[in-house]
Parts: sequence; structure tokens; C-alpha cells
Amino acid sequence: MHTNYAIIVPMNSNTFGENWTFTSFGESHGAAIGGVLDGVPAGLRIDMDLIRRELDRRAGKVQSDDVQCTKGVSPRAVREPDEVEWLSGVMDGLTLGTPIAFIIRNKDARPEDYEWLKTNYRVGHADKVYEQKYGIRDWRGGGRASARETAGRVVAGCIAKQELAQKGITIHAELVQVGTETDPDKFNDMIAAYQREGDSIGGIIECRITGLPAGIGEPIFHKLQAELAFAVMSINACKGFEYGTGFDGVTQPGSAINHISGGIAGGISDGTEIVFRCVFKPTPSTPKAGVKGRHDACVATRAVPVVEAMTALTLVSLT
Amino acid sequence: MHTNYAIIVPMNSNTFGENWTFTSFGESHGAAIGGVLDGVPAGLRIDMDLIRRELDRRAGKVQSDDVQCTKGVSPRAVREPDEVEWLSGVMDGLTLGTPIAFIIRNKDARPEDYEWLKTNYRVGHADKVYEQKYGIRDWRGGGRASARETAGRVVAGCIAKQELAQKGITIHAELVQVGTETDPDKFNDMIAAYQREGDSIGGIIECRITGLPAGIGEPIFHKLQAELAFAVMSINACKGFEYGTGFDGVTQPGSAINHISGGIAGGISDGTEIVFRCVFKPTPSTPKAGVKGRHDACVATRAVPVVEAMTALTLVSLT
Amino acid sequence: MHTNYAIIVPMNSNTFGENWTFTSFGESHGAAIGGVLDGVPAGLRIDMDLIRRELDRRAGKVQSDDVQCTKGVSPRAVREPDEVEWLSGVMDGLTLGTPIAFIIRNKDARPEDYEWLKTNYRVGHADKVYEQKYGIRDWRGGGRASARETAGRVVAGCIAKQELAQKGITIHAELVQVGTETDPDKFNDMIAAYQREGDSIGGIIECRITGLPAGIGEPIFHKLQAELAFAVMSINACKGFEYGTGFDGVTQPGSAINHISGGIAGGISDGTEIVFRCVFKPTPSTPKAGVKGRHDACVATRAVPVVEAMTALTLVSLT
Amino acid sequence: MHTNYAIIVPMNSNTFGENWTFTSFGESHGAAIGGVLDGVPAGLRIDMDLIRRELDRRAGKVQSDDVQCTKGVSPRAVREPDEVEWLSGVMDGLTLGTPIAFIIRNKDARPEDYEWLKTNYRVGHADKVYEQKYGIRDWRGGGRASARETAGRVVAGCIAKQELAQKGITIHAELVQVGTETDPDKFNDMIAAYQREGDSIGGIIECRITGLPAGIGEPIFHKLQAELAFAVMSINACKGFEYGTGFDGVTQPGSAINHISGGIAGGISDGTEIVFRCVFKPTPSTPKAGVKGRHDACVATRAVPVVEAMTALTLVSLT
Repeated sequence: MHTNYAIIVPMNSNTFGENWTFTSFGESHGAAIGGVLDGVPAGLRIDMDLIRRELDRRAGKVQSDDVQCTKGVSPRAVREPDEVEWLSGVMDGLTLGTPIAFIIRNKDARPEDYEWLKTNYRVGHADKVYEQKYGIRDWRGGGRASARETAGRVVAGCIAKQELAQKGITIHAELVQVGTETDPDKFNDMIAAYQREGDSIGGIIECRITGLPAGIGEPIFHKLQAELAFAVMSINACKGFEYGTGFDGVTQPGSAINHISGGIAGGISDGTEIVFRCVFKPTPSTPKAGVKGRHDACVATRAVPVVEAMTALTLVSLT
Repeated sequence: MHTNYAIIVPMNSNTFGENWTFTSFGESHGAAIGGVLDGVPAGLRIDMDLIRRELDRRAGKVQSDDVQCTKGVSPRAVREPDEVEWLSGVMDGLTLGTPIAFIIRNKDARPEDYEWLKTNYRVGHADKVYEQKYGIRDWRGGGRASARETAGRVVAGCIAKQELAQKGITIHAELVQVGTETDPDKFNDMIAAYQREGDSIGGIIECRITGLPAGIGEPIFHKLQAELAFAVMSINACKGFEYGTGFDGVTQPGSAINHISGGIAGGISDGTEIVFRCVFKPTPSTPKAGVKGRHDACVATRAVPVVEAMTALTLVSLT
Repeated sequence: MHTNYAIIVPMNSNTFGENWTFTSFGESHGAAIGGVLDGVPAGLRIDMDLIRRELDRRAGKVQSDDVQCTKGVSPRAVREPDEVEWLSGVMDGLTLGTPIAFIIRNKDARPEDYEWLKTNYRVGHADKVYEQKYGIRDWRGGGRASARETAGRVVAGCIAKQELAQKGITIHAELVQVGTETDPDKFNDMIAAYQREGDSIGGIIECRITGLPAGIGEPIFHKLQAELAFAVMSINACKGFEYGTGFDGVTQPGSAINHISGGIAGGISDGTEIVFRCVFKPTPSTPKAGVKGRHDACVATRAVPVVEAMTALTLVSLT
Repeated sequence: MHTNYAIIVPMNSNTFGENWTFTSFGESHGAAIGGVLDGVPAGLRIDMDLIRRELDRRAGKVQSDDVQCTKGVSPRAVREPDEVEWLSGVMDGLTLGTPIAFIIRNKDARPEDYEWLKTNYRVGHADKVYEQKYGIRDWRGGGRASARETAGRVVAGCIAKQELAQKGITIHAELVQVGTETDPDKFNDMIAAYQREGDSIGGIIECRITGLPAGIGEPIFHKLQAELAFAVMSINACKGFEYGTGFDGVTQPGSAINHISGGIAGGISDGTEIVFRCVFKPTPSTPKAGVKGRHDACVATRAVPVVEAMTALTLVSLT
């Protein structure tokens, strides 16, 4: 039966985490995307408003719709509010200790927009490797490879952040560079310029973790920095991760920089603030590249809450 | 925040399997029960009718409703057909290689029937240990501990059976003992008798695996019999597992029984038919025990497709 | 390169446990058997004498050598004392929190005794399936399939028992049936009789866990009884596992036995004593079966400390 | 019993990989370091010479001893050849399919050199966090945190490389930057200069994977780049990982760089060469920092075979 397909490999890679485990599912233009978050202790009160706001951040709706457009956010994000439907694990706003399943239905599915993808592979996208790996793919809007999948991560990560907040641990990510620009006040202008040209641009996100006690992380393979890198590098379009002195530190002698720990020593948190940075490439789907449809000029802007979510899902299993 | 609760332990135990992983979720009287089956190869055509029939077997609807009642099946099973809603992973009847999420909505939820359970623990049920473990529980009909959870296992297991069938591997379980009775023709009468008395009775299920090639199973901790025992002992009300010569073999000298392998040698399948048996206790919720509501006189009857499902989910990860 | 071999399947099954993980290695007649126990908290003082006594129990040296022989213990166990060499993880008798590696060298390796096994498969042994699975095997004394592998489990389990003892949890297993005999005073005579006839006989071991608090075990797939069954069924020659009312309970109505929990409700410990039983088959290697070399008339006697060890390794990850 | 210690957390983090699993053990100045490699198929012929050469690379003995010193390699590496003792899993030079255990004894242990570390924490080292995490530590030469632990990784990785080589997959890492220097011919001079000053300097390693077919890697959490980042960031002193366009790509518009995949699309290999880079900080243990004892002026030089080993252990589980 499988003989029609080139490569048949099971996927079984849709679960993240060890104590809190998050299983993600859903195609961009199927019935729904969603997830199951298991391991959440009983009795946690979930702030549904906070989850809604985080989803809005991911959708680029932090400000007015006009501003969003100048920031280069795809119109779909505006038209289709992400409404979470809770299926299990929560009763009267409190977690039950049982798996929390939720879905976000795909209301704005317009597969006809993507009909041309049935027989075309977009440059810089996963269309072709999916076909090579599975022999079959949901061609509608990238299917499983769509960044829409990260909405589920944001929901789960937001629950994790609420648990961490109770322990005094906070996570804050922000965009610190767009193209060659490092002044945040000038980011919108720069993005708008690339948007107008039908082009796109990358960005660097910095994330700070405060309140993490010393002793978190395991010293050999599961070093805290390795866990964080694994989490962050799993976000679409992320091309690099560094912490502490990072890549730039290579030019400095030990005597100048060895007091900088980045919050981790020997793979274990040392009780000081943890600082890491990650870089996101420009989206390949641009008018300039011949792709009409929806696109963002700078996907790094929408990756900010996803970086926080993956960081939270990492830490909540370790604390 | 958690200080109100006696014991706070994460649950993270709702995933089964290594290559094909099945994550189960849902409370008996919440919005829905369901699951996510990950690791299914792309291109498998799913027989939706077969899944429906397996769910009917689990619900006790193998014959007419009248017969079911004499067999001691709870009326809920009759009133509430289990309809599967597919959320992801399947397109045009073919698997995509991505996680397959599905739900079965709880249509017949009548929490008022269970109001008394808010403040009472049923003997032989998990009500009290849930309260001790989580400090909170969904008291409606057993919540997560309800046997309704096994419907999701049957859906996932049926997909696994379809994959195995393509490889020539078949799994067949059947009831071989009810109380002291070993003649299948007399099972219905015996169950009906216990039903009339407001009592309940246990049963033994035998399961046979044919077509499994030699070499399946790992020789030390993950012996094939250990994997099967783990799978089957996770079914509600199961109190024992044996294979090959089993417990009765203790009375026989080696010279008499050492040619009987039960299909496994040193933890590895030897290419012959595998035979194992498992025992299910009587349901504790009976009129005689003071529990009104829904109940089955012999839950072993409905466990048969669940035993097959768990066996299939075990084997499909190993073959 | 692998084309010479019939079936090439990776083994990766030599690790047991989730929080305390025990990795076992070694062939019966190679350089050494041993293991790595990871996850042990720092600061545990290890009682080396207790470990030695447990190894003696497994070797059958609980009494004088003469008695051992009448009890049907292989002469190798007497000639070759199991001396543990500690490689890491322990300093000044205290655990460091790092992995504890240890080996037991194979001093009494006499491969020439097994030369005939190069080209012969013993009935009831794993010789043939190893050849089928791996295409290659260490034929010397069963290699990896030898029960000698369980010595490593006993060392690791004994460390787990010491941790559990500090929490007030005790594990006690004992032989309760040999053949048809249930009077322990008559076990030695019965075993000696089978020994004289060049035959062998099975046995049933009962294990009791006391002091385990309510709330241990996970309610769906990782039920406490499923974890225990998995652990115990992984021991060589074990053919069945039951707890609470077990298989015999099938003949009793719910009204008669539903107060018997066996210490577990809904997969979770209920705070009462846990009782389970497991059955071991007779050894197939007997003079009567044409196998000269070493053998035991009743391997169940030596399985008692292994049952305790696997139970301890299971519980120590959950408590 | 544990009340003497500040934080008691299990470690259980000494195993890497899913199909091929490598478990590492051993303190720098204990009896031995070593590991267990499980999941290796039966019938692989192991090239022992290659393993020896790889260990020499890690020890810095690629050239004459004189050159080593100018390259800033610690004298211990020269005095103490790493001899591998094989304990299991190999017979007549062929793997058995069973776990391969090996040790390297610590011959040159001079704990008296480290006596001062009993009561001192070195800046930039893990001494203090180990004490905080475990409440106890092996102070002799860093104990478990010593880079000596990576010798075991190199042995296991070399076996993985031999398996990959049979499939036409090759891994090649090399130093591409030391301090501000990018000309390899000038690396030795630059390192020697820092050595003379009693200081140290970082380096960047580039690694190329060729021959990997399209379709390797899982599209959501277990993206190939996430797996590689996890593996490489677990190496001591590594501060960052990037692939493809990496951090520098942030300054380029999508139209200029979107054709550069770095060998991976959507988390899945696309069949072209994979290129990634990682940065290693300068060692903090220098005369300038007041640390006498052994040290290397540029640990990045010795990390090259470790990067290859961790890459090999990652890929061998996925191919």
C-alpha cells in the first residue's frame, strides 16, 4: 500500500517536554490546530485573558490594525481571531491535573488561494522536503509546516508562564535588531520599507529569565543551555542561538570575559539573570520572490511570544 | 496557591507507545474525550467503518439492544453513539504522516446523576485516591477514571490494527471464562443472572496474535511479554496477565511443558502464535453495593476490543 | 556490510526506569557484566554489605553449600563470588549525584563448556531467536540472555531499596508455591526430588510492599499495577503477574470481593499494603532434556531477590 | 539523611540519543570514565585504530609533543594516553547488537594538585553550582564537570561515524576562527601568544555534513537543527550555535539570502550539504586568573572531534 510513496518515515515528533509534555497537532487549513498539555498540577487557576492577549501578540495584533499592516503582518492574522476551545483538563477555571486539550478552529481556510501549491514547491519553504519525506502533504498554506502551528505553543507556554510566575520566575523576550537596525524606535519604519519593496528582513530576539534559582539544569547532556537551544531552534525560521558571551565573545581573551556567565555554569543555572539571543531569517514568501498570498515582512516580530512560550515550556519541566 | 491541596503530583502519564505514540485526554462528562495518535506513516487509508464497529463492540452494541441489556451493558452506551470527529492528520481518507487528532463529544452528559459523588467516595472506585493525589477531581461519573476513556484507545488501536493487517499480523481476543463458566454459549445467561441480582462478575479474556515474525521484542527490560503486560494491565479493572504456560504451569515439571513457548523466547517472538490471558474483576458499582446509576454486570465483555486495541498499539511500535 | 545477517534490529532496550534509570550491560562469559544507575540523589550512604548479601541470595548462597546443592543451585554460583567493582558516582561511601557505574567480572568463564552451543539451539532458551534477531550471538553460556544479567539488577535494586527504606517503604518477596506444594517447609525436599530426577519445576513468588503512601501511580497508561507488571515480567522465566484478587478472583461475585483493592485503586496506591504474585517456569536446561552443564532445578528460588530489585527500581522512580 | 544538603535534585541526564543511546559516567579523578552505547546493530566491525586516533585528536596529540605545548594543550593529555578497555557488546571485533560498555581508567590522578579546590570555587567553572545543586561534589579536578568526560563521547561518536560512513554520510569539523584570526595558518601563533601571557582565547568551529539524504529530521519540535543545537550546546564551553545564514544573515534582505538553506528546510534535510558553526569560550582556568595546575590556552582546538562525535551520535539515531 505504501509503495506509491518515496520515503515513509514516522513523524512522532510532535511532543515537547519531559514533566510538562505538550503535544501539538493540526494542519494550517484543516479542521483545527491544537494541543494537549499534560503534567500540569491540579489546582492551577488559568488566566484566559492572558492567553488571549498572548495569541494576539503572536498574531501581530498588539496595536491597531493599521499599525499592524505597516509592521508587515499578514492580513489573515487580522481577519481570523484565534479562539481557544477547551476540551478537557479544566473545570471551573481550575486545572484538574489531567491532560488539558484545546483546539483553535481554522475559520478562514481558503484552500483555493493555495491551489497552485499542489504542483509547486516554494523556495525557502518545506513544501518539497515534506513531499520527499512523506510522499504526501497537505499543500493548503503549508499544512503542518505553517507558522500557524505556533499558536498552540503560545497557549501551552502561557499556562507554563503562569505556573512559573507563581514561583517568581519571569521570562521576557524582545526584538533587539531588525536588519542592521538596533534602535527599537526605528524598527517599524525599517519593516515598512521592506514591506513596500515586496521584500523581507530578519531579526534578533533577546530573552531574559529572572528569578530562576541556582541549581536548574543537568550537567552533562541536558545542560540548561542545550535545553534552551533545542526549544528555541525548533521555532520556524530560527537560524541561531547563543547565550552569555555568544559568538561575539570569540574576539575577547579569557581575562576580559570570564566573569560573564550568562546565568549558567557547567550547564546549571547560577542564580543570576539568564540572557540568550536567537536570530530569525526573513520570510521567503514575498511578492519579490513571486509569492502572492499572505506574508509578513519580518516574521521575527511575531516570534517574540513564541520564544517566550518555548522558554517557559522548557523551564516548567525543570523547576 | 497549591496549599489547599493534599498532594500535588503531575500526571504526565497519558501517552502510550514509542514509535506510534497515543496521547489520551478527556473527562467522562466534560466537553469531549479524544486522543492524538502520532507516528502513523503517511499514506495509510483509514477504514472509518471498521472504527465505528469497534466502538460499537466496546459500547456493547454487538447485537440487538435487548440482548445487550441481558448482557448487562449500561444504558448510556445505547443512548450515546460514539461519533468520531477528526481534527487533523487525515486528508481525503489518507493519513498525512502528521499527528491524527480526534474527539468524541460527550452528548449524554447528565452531571446531576452524579451530584451525590461530590461528597461520596464509591467503594472499589478511584474517587478517593484521585482526591488524595490531586486534591481536586471531576466527580461527574468518574471523570478521567471512567472506562469511557477507553473509547479513544479503541479508535487509535483500530488504526494500528489496520497497519498491522497490511503486514499480515492479526490480533483476536475473546472472552473465555465468566465466573466459573467456560462455555461461551452459557456466558449471557450467567451475566444475566448476576444482573438480575444487582451483582456483578469477573471474566478472563484470551488474546491470540498470529503472523508476527520472529525477532520482535527486546531481550532485557523490554521483553515482548513485559510490553504486552504493561499494555493490558493499564486497562481499567484488569487484575492479572499471563502467557504461555501461565500460572497453571507451576504444577508441571519442566520435562512436561518446556516445549510450550507461548510464542516468545527470551523476550523475543519466535514466529509461532502468541497466546496470553488476562483477568478482569467485577464492577464494584452495583445496586447490591448501593450504587444506582449506570453499570455493567460484567465489564470483561466490553474489555475485549480494548485488549485488542492495546495489543495493537504495542505491536505497531515494534514491527 | 550487514547483508550477512538475517534480521538487523537495534536493541536499545537495556535501560529501565524514568527518574532513577538503570542501564544494564554485559555478556555472561565476556569480560564483565555491570550497569550504570543514574538519578540517585547525592548524599546517600550505600551499605556495601547489604549489596553483598543480596548478591549471595541471588546466587543461592543463603545457607551452606551443601544445602544449596540440595536446593538445586548451579555450582558456578558457589565457585564464583560476585564481587562488585565501583567505577564512579560514589566517594567515601556516599553517592555524588552522578551516575553510579559498577562491574562484576566474569572470573569463572569456561567457554569450552559451551562450545557445542555454537551450532546448537537449546529448547526453551533464547539461542535461536537471538540468531534470528541479530544474525550473530555470543553463544558462550547464553551470552546476554543468561540469568547472570540479573546480578546487576540486584545491585541497582539494593541501592533503590536503601533509598526507599529511608522513606519507610519496605519490599518483601518470598516463594509461596513450588510445583503443587504450598508449605514452605517442604520446598527444599520437593526441589531436591526434581534435581535427582534431572528434571525441574516452577514456583510462585508473592511480594508485599508496605509503607507506600496513597497517591503513587498514574491513572491512565502508567497505572501502578502496569508499571509493576512491566518490571516483573522482564525477569527471565516469568510467565505471569497478578495483584489483589488476581486470576482466582474470577469465580467470585463483586459483592464478595470488591472490598479487596490489593493496595491500588484506579492505578493509584491507596495507602494499604500492596500484594502481587508472579510465576516462574521450570528451567528448560536439565539433564532430562539432554543439557549437561550448569543448571538449577527451581530457578524461582533465585528470582526472589530479583523480584524485590525490580519492584524497588519501579517504586524509587515514583516516590 | 539528606538534610545536610542544600538542594537535592536527581541528575538522570547522562544519556544521549534515542535509537543509539549513549550513557556517560565517571569522575575526572575517580577510578575511570566510560560509557555504554546501546542500539548499535549487530555485525558492525569496529575500527579500534580509528578510535585511538580520535582520542589522540581530543587529547591534542595530533602532532609532536613540542607542537602540542605551543598549541596550549595541558601536559596531562600528553602523559596519560587514553586506553579503552572493552567490557561488553563486542566479540572478535564485531558488535553483538548488545550494549557496548567501555572504560578509560584514570591513571594520572593526582588529587593532591586539587586539594585547594576542596574549599575554593574557581571563577567560570562549575564548582559552586555543583555544590549548590548536589550539596556534595568530587572536587578533584572538576570531577564530573571536567572536559575529560568528553573522551567517552569521542569513543561512542567514533563508532557512530563508522556506521554513518557505511551509508555514505561524512562529518567534518574544523577550527575556522581563533580570537580575531580567521587564517588557519596563523592559529598556532595566536594560541601560543595567549599561552605565554597566561591568558586564553575562544574559537569558532565549522562542521559540514555531506551525504545525508533528504527527509531526515522531524518537522515540529525535533527539527534537525534543534537536534544538532542540543547536541553541540551540551559540549563544555560552547556558547552558541548557528546554521545556514546564521546570525550574520540578519543584515541581509530575504531577496538576497533565501536561496541559502544550510541543508535544512522546515526542520528536514533537503539533500544538500549541511553547514553549522559553534563558538567556544576561552578556558577560565589560567595563570592570569590565578589558577596554576593544568590548562589549555584554547579549548576550542580539542573540541573539534567532540563536535564531530556529538553530530555523529545525533545523526546515527535519525538515519
